[in-house]
Amino acid sequence: MLRAVLLLTLLPAAAGAADYQKVATRIIEEARDSDHAWTLLTELCDDIGHRLSGSKALENAVDWAIVRLKEAGHENVRGEPVMVPHWVRGKESASMLEPLHKPLVILGVGRSAGTPPEGITAEVLVAADEKAFEALGDRVKGRIVLFDNPMPAYDAEKGAGYGETVLFRGKGAKLVEEKGGVGALVRSVTAHSLRTPHTGTQGYREGIPKVPAAAVTTEDAAYIARLVARGKKVVVRLKMEAKHLPDAKSHNVVAELRGRIKPEEVVVIGGHLDSWDVGQGAHDDGTGVVAAMEALGILRRLKLKPRRTIRVVLWTNEENGLEGAKAYAKAHEKEVHVGGIESDSGGFAFVGFSLDHADAEARTRSVAKLKTLAPLFAPLGGQKMWESFSGADLSPLKERGIPLLGLRVDGSKYFDYHHTPADTLDKVVREDFVNDVAGMALMAYLLADLPERIDAPAKGKK
Amino acid sequence: MLRAVLLLTLLPAAAGAADYQKVATRIIEEARDSDHAWTLLTELCDDIGHRLSGSKALENAVDWAIVRLKEAGHENVRGEPVMVPHWVRGKESASMLEPLHKPLVILGVGRSAGTPPEGITAEVLVAADEKAFEALGDRVKGRIVLFDNPMPAYDAEKGAGYGETVLFRGKGAKLVEEKGGVGALVRSVTAHSLRTPHTGTQGYREGIPKVPAAAVTTEDAAYIARLVARGKKVVVRLKMEAKHLPDAKSHNVVAELRGRIKPEEVVVIGGHLDSWDVGQGAHDDGTGVVAAMEALGILRRLKLKPRRTIRVVLWTNEENGLEGAKAYAKAHEKEVHVGGIESDSGGFAFVGFSLDHADAEARTRSVAKLKTLAPLFAPLGGQKMWESFSGADLSPLKERGIPLLGLRVDGSKYFDYHHTPADTLDKVVREDFVNDVAGMALMAYLLADLPERIDAPAKGKK
Repeated sequence: MLRAVLLLTLLPAAAGAADYQKVATRIIEEARDSDHAWTLLTELCDDIGHRLSGSKALENAVDWAIVRLKEAGHENVRGEPVMVPHWVRGKESASMLEPLHKPLVILGVGRSAGTPPEGITAEVLVAADEKAFEALGDRVKGRIVLFDNPMPAYDAEKGAGYGETVLFRGKGAKLVEEKGGVGALVRSVTAHSLRTPHTGTQGYREGIPKVPAAAVTTEDAAYIARLVARGKKVVVRLKMEAKHLPDAKSHNVVAELRGRIKPEEVVVIGGHLDSWDVGQGAHDDGTGVVAAMEALGILRRLKLKPRRTIRVVLWTNEENGLEGAKAYAKAHEKEVHVGGIESDSGGFAFVGFSLDHADAEARTRSVAKLKTLAPLFAPLGGQKMWESFSGADLSPLKERGIPLLGLRVDGSKYFDYHHTPADTLDKVVREDFVNDVAGMALMAYLLADLPERIDAPAKGKK
Repeated sequence: MLRAVLLLTLLPAAAGAADYQKVATRIIEEARDSDHAWTLLTELCDDIGHRLSGSKALENAVDWAIVRLKEAGHENVRGEPVMVPHWVRGKESASMLEPLHKPLVILGVGRSAGTPPEGITAEVLVAADEKAFEALGDRVKGRIVLFDNPMPAYDAEKGAGYGETVLFRGKGAKLVEEKGGVGALVRSVTAHSLRTPHTGTQGYREGIPKVPAAAVTTEDAAYIARLVARGKKVVVRLKMEAKHLPDAKSHNVVAELRGRIKPEEVVVIGGHLDSWDVGQGAHDDGTGVVAAMEALGILRRLKLKPRRTIRVVLWTNEENGLEGAKAYAKAHEKEVHVGGIESDSGGFAFVGFSLDHADAEARTRSVAKLKTLAPLFAPLGGQKMWESFSGADLSPLKERGIPLLGLRVDGSKYFDYHHTPADTLDKVVREDFVNDVAGMALMAYLLADLPERIDAPAKGKK
């Protein structure tokens, strides 16, 4: 082992894929041969379950992660306190009262206001897009508006279309409130449903609308829209106990593998420990959390000590506040960060890495460098490297001008499960997930060990 | 039109596909150009919804069908009374109490007994198959058993594997009762779930077990099984208000297009009007009901009067008793039936027809004849004809020795929606469904109009 360390220490500044081939093979084999990742994910999903900010379960997850990271022998394992929003769903229900009595399947939108105990009962108007909403004009007054904009089918080129589709979950209640309406129903953000409601957050922390908002299943949204299109008057009763409690104390969990040459330079890798309050938060983001924990575990077990420090950060409160990410960036603002990797796209089949960087030229250089390293990842089934968003928890670090990577996987099913009761361990394919773990470990090692940062200008250039 | 009728009257006994090419084209065009089928299906799903035996909704559906069939100008439109089982679900819930408090998503199994008001609370044992259940031995006493046998992924060759997988829904409660257990949980019969529970009936009408049975989602079944496999004690509380009321009056709906030459010979076509008490009964069996209604409508509008009588029968109580099918067979036992077609596999993309017959040689002859007619169906996207089960409601007619056909469609998604809250109109693709309607109309016309029955022995043979 000592010999390997010495050899690596002597790598030339332009070290590349060939210099890391053996290490890559060892990392991949260790990921595939070990039960660690699967055991950790099973514990997080089955023994803790979902873990929304402010819940006891989230702090149970914090405690669990600290214990497991310490057991693995990592350095500087700790929880760093963060105050997080504490929204609780309470009981909620919705029913159609006219033209038929039918129960509707809902999940209140995160951060939504609640209703009076007797609920809100009103006629429902339907808008498929913003133009249609505007056209409703004064009719919105005293009514509930259903935003019925369908998510397109997944497209391998264009992706899932989440960003375009989610807008009314974000601002539907606000729009309705501004026009004097009394409630917002938003079509669940998915292209594939089995009467499955999808929660998620509103876009407001301050100035939260008083108008409540709930996600309805695509089935119920389509049903209401069909009835209204046929000229029927649809009346719905919405009952939600949702409320905001005072901010609660939570924690980012941190652990390190200290660098052997430049320990003061930090590569951050992680996922978010919190989840929505349904399902098990398996793909969102249990797999990201465990990929980071176990990436460090693999390197530690293989006694691979990189040039720089690799720091695992398990962020709290990604889902409804991003307070963990903000707090981490603030608490560590004086430290030298040289890169980051987040896994928050699920634990599906490995595809490669997206890369973001505040500096356009450095972004281009970084992706070019990643492409030279890509063949190392080929055994994992993917080696795509491209410019794109990396991850929400890394976003506060972007202004530091460092390469921020997103571990990327097959995205065709992610939004089937996203923010639903169906985001459970049975949806994770172990053979796929261990490749993600290996990908995280290998990329973390490369970013921390390459003699030069991947965004470094070429020699002789300014 | 008179001329067409005369021409058809003069068809030779060996008339085949070529003689019906023009008629087939007209039927297919009428099905595709008309809004009738989609309007009927929308009314049944959206204005009536699910309709379990004994419910007001089922009798609303009976009344609706009679009105629509009369409006279409059919002959002998009527409801024929049938006494049907009246099982009501009531409220139901289940929760894991140990090792964690977690709500479970269930649907009680049809015909199940209820629990005491306080529910049944017991440790859960897990059996993946009958052998594993036997191996539990005396441990079953006082406990709940989870039957965790997964449905295989859909296979284009082997089909869905429903028959093999459904056995514990049918007899799980009985097995548990025999060994002194207190409750049965059965894994929902599906290969694809988004925390979606699937109901369905037990195999008993008389001697119903006192032990209650509920279907759990595949997610919850897998979760409980994982915990038990890890040595955890799992305790569940099951509450079900399910109960049996006295048998209720329902109706088979009948309508006819009387034959022009042998009106006393009847070809029965239909689907079942009842559904489970969740979703809208869209694919099961709204599409079958509407395919039969509209098949008759198309022939009527095209003024195609076949040699024999075509009778639409919308059976009641297929789901939990088959009393409608039995009552129809009994009430019409003296009439000459010459064939039947049932659509009860959903309204997906048209594939062709399966054929069943009590007489093996007649079965072979019938399929051979169907294959000569198959090219007429090619424009619908399918023309497969093969020996197989036809449909549950036709089964009491089998002993009469007549060809019984099943309208067959792409089965890859049927069991995703089957007996769930997600069997809703949005799952039916209109362009696929109108082909099924056309297929039903065309095959009904052929069976009723061909000079010889499709199971007739070849001339000169005995």
